[in-house]
Amino acid sequence: MNLHDLVNRPTAWLPGAGEGGGIVVSSRIRLARNLKDTAFPGWAGEDECAHIWRRLVPTLREAPALEKPLQVDMGDCSALDRHILFERHLISRELAERKAGGGLFLRGDEGLSVMVNEEDHLRLQALRPDLDLSGAWREVNQLDGELERDLDFAFSPQLGYLTACPTNVGTGLRASVMLHVPGLVLVKEMTAVVKGMAKIGLAVRGLWGEGSEASGHLFQVSNQMTLGEAEAEIIGNLEQIVTEIVEHEQNARWRLFEQNEAYLRDRVGRAIGLLTHAHVLNSKEALDLLSDLRLGIDMNMVEQWNHQVVNQLLLQTQPGHLQKQQGRRLKPGERDVARADMVREQLRQSKEKRSGNSDE
Amino acid sequence: MNLHDLVNRPTAWLPGAGEGGGIVVSSRIRLARNLKDTAFPGWAGEDECAHIWRRLVPTLREAPALEKPLQVDMGDCSALDRHILFERHLISRELAERKAGGGLFLRGDEGLSVMVNEEDHLRLQALRPDLDLSGAWREVNQLDGELERDLDFAFSPQLGYLTACPTNVGTGLRASVMLHVPGLVLVKEMTAVVKGMAKIGLAVRGLWGEGSEASGHLFQVSNQMTLGEAEAEIIGNLEQIVTEIVEHEQNARWRLFEQNEAYLRDRVGRAIGLLTHAHVLNSKEALDLLSDLRLGIDMNMVEQWNHQVVNQLLLQTQPGHLQKQQGRRLKPGERDVARADMVREQLRQSKEKRSGNSDE
Repeated sequence: MNLHDLVNRPTAWLPGAGEGGGIVVSSRIRLARNLKDTAFPGWAGEDECAHIWRRLVPTLREAPALEKPLQVDMGDCSALDRHILFERHLISRELAERKAGGGLFLRGDEGLSVMVNEEDHLRLQALRPDLDLSGAWREVNQLDGELERDLDFAFSPQLGYLTACPTNVGTGLRASVMLHVPGLVLVKEMTAVVKGMAKIGLAVRGLWGEGSEASGHLFQVSNQMTLGEAEAEIIGNLEQIVTEIVEHEQNARWRLFEQNEAYLRDRVGRAIGLLTHAHVLNSKEALDLLSDLRLGIDMNMVEQWNHQVVNQLLLQTQPGHLQKQQGRRLKPGERDVARADMVREQLRQSKEKRSGNSDE
Repeated sequence: MNLHDLVNRPTAWLPGAGEGGGIVVSSRIRLARNLKDTAFPGWAGEDECAHIWRRLVPTLREAPALEKPLQVDMGDCSALDRHILFERHLISRELAERKAGGGLFLRGDEGLSVMVNEEDHLRLQALRPDLDLSGAWREVNQLDGELERDLDFAFSPQLGYLTACPTNVGTGLRASVMLHVPGLVLVKEMTAVVKGMAKIGLAVRGLWGEGSEASGHLFQVSNQMTLGEAEAEIIGNLEQIVTEIVEHEQNARWRLFEQNEAYLRDRVGRAIGLLTHAHVLNSKEALDLLSDLRLGIDMNMVEQWNHQVVNQLLLQTQPGHLQKQQGRRLKPGERDVARADMVREQLRQSKEKRSGNSDE
């Protein structure tokens, strides 16, 4: 496997083959771990980071849970490849900016990975489609155990795992769920929901993490607390809240449908009209239109397409993926034209395939 | 023929059958005439207007040029039918508001008509598709001659024909041309063109006359002067100016195409996407989208549709036509849904018919 293979396929959190993916798009668990008696990456010099990297490589290569992973050394990684890994939620913005002495180990299905020398020496991450925090926890926990056999982690009996940023001390665990909530946004209740979650110690962010806008009605909800709660408790709490949000969202959708079906059909119809006919499309508009199309599929208003093609386009319309696919750097104006061409073509092919299948 | 027949067919200024209709949509000539020694309609009482109407009916019924016209007495005309006649440019807003003692005589093809007791006793009107002011003038002039054999018109050897409003005294002639100039609007040159025309004594108005917005990039250009110029001179001047505007418009379109083909294709594509997929469409948006589709057809960017269906929809998306077709009064919200349904359906049928034909 190499990076080129990634671009045209679905990723762990956006299943391509199944019909899955309703309101909860994906679940993610990450664990922060650091080596004992070793400076955190932010304090370590270039040489020390390179040393840490070399020390971790053999362990990560051989960790059974990673199943002979793809190894990406940031020092050898082009700007475009970094961008693609970021768009697939496999590396953070911070790691994408690192020059050398850090990188990524990635299981073939992208469901399990480890970032090396981001803010912490190790960031273990499991990604799953749908609401499945327990499944993600099992995977990441197994990997954590495998690594611990080989490595000495910085750990305090009072505090738990030690991390570069105090907000991660303790379990080092961040559980997060990506939600698609156009209904709550359209009935103007999402602001209240976000406020309510903040009160009970949850963070709400846009599709690409902290500071990113909530394009495409996609939000990430995650725990803020890592200290004083057991892993199972953190995960259980988040799962419960998410289940409640999902109910609110379903309720909002059906209220919209009952009160103004024409408005909803118009919204979905216009999204389809523009996605299949525009010749210039920026990534924000593409994301928003794909969100409306996805809503239409969820609500059985759309027959020509399924979640699969929408999920695929959600990734492929991003600037990095788009340029990788085109095989060259594109100026922003050129990108918008290439994006519109690609979206029209993919939706055309997918519709033909589907109507072909249904004729059988 | 009755009014019900009108709704589903093209009108004189929007040919339905042909492929005609580029930048100049239609040409119109109207003549204002009044009876000698008789109060103008605005000064005449109800009884006197009824008397004038009765006096004019036999002459207009028998005028050969009108070919046994449809006679519409405003006293018997429903609000919806008035609206339809107004939308077809066959009566003015003023006549549409008259209760009785006035009306319309209409030749079957709608190309020639007479309004009775609008601002003047008689308003003769000839409507032609494309740029054909001379053709319209021939028709209206012939009708004028036929009426003059039977009627005594108010005429002053010094001033010419006398009219209720001094701006019409003299020839009583207003020549106007409807232009579709999206190119000039998009390159932001239309404001300058409008100013230039005002300087040489031409008026520029929107699709539905004075005070109406220039929806759908449609503008009416007409002479302001009726006194001191012969008919042929007025018509010749206007024809020359219009020919220049057409050149400017063509130039603007090709500049747009050369400088930013993607933008133009996007504009046309989006219009098609929305017209074929929206479920809620107000009349202003419909007009604007039809304008973009028309531009696409003019520029050979669109194969699925021709001018015919666009012209048809230009009329049928108007509130009066829409309600007549649905056979009932519709609230504005209901209209927008019915309009979107109708547009989608007509475009679907027209596309199927066209692709069916091309398969033969």
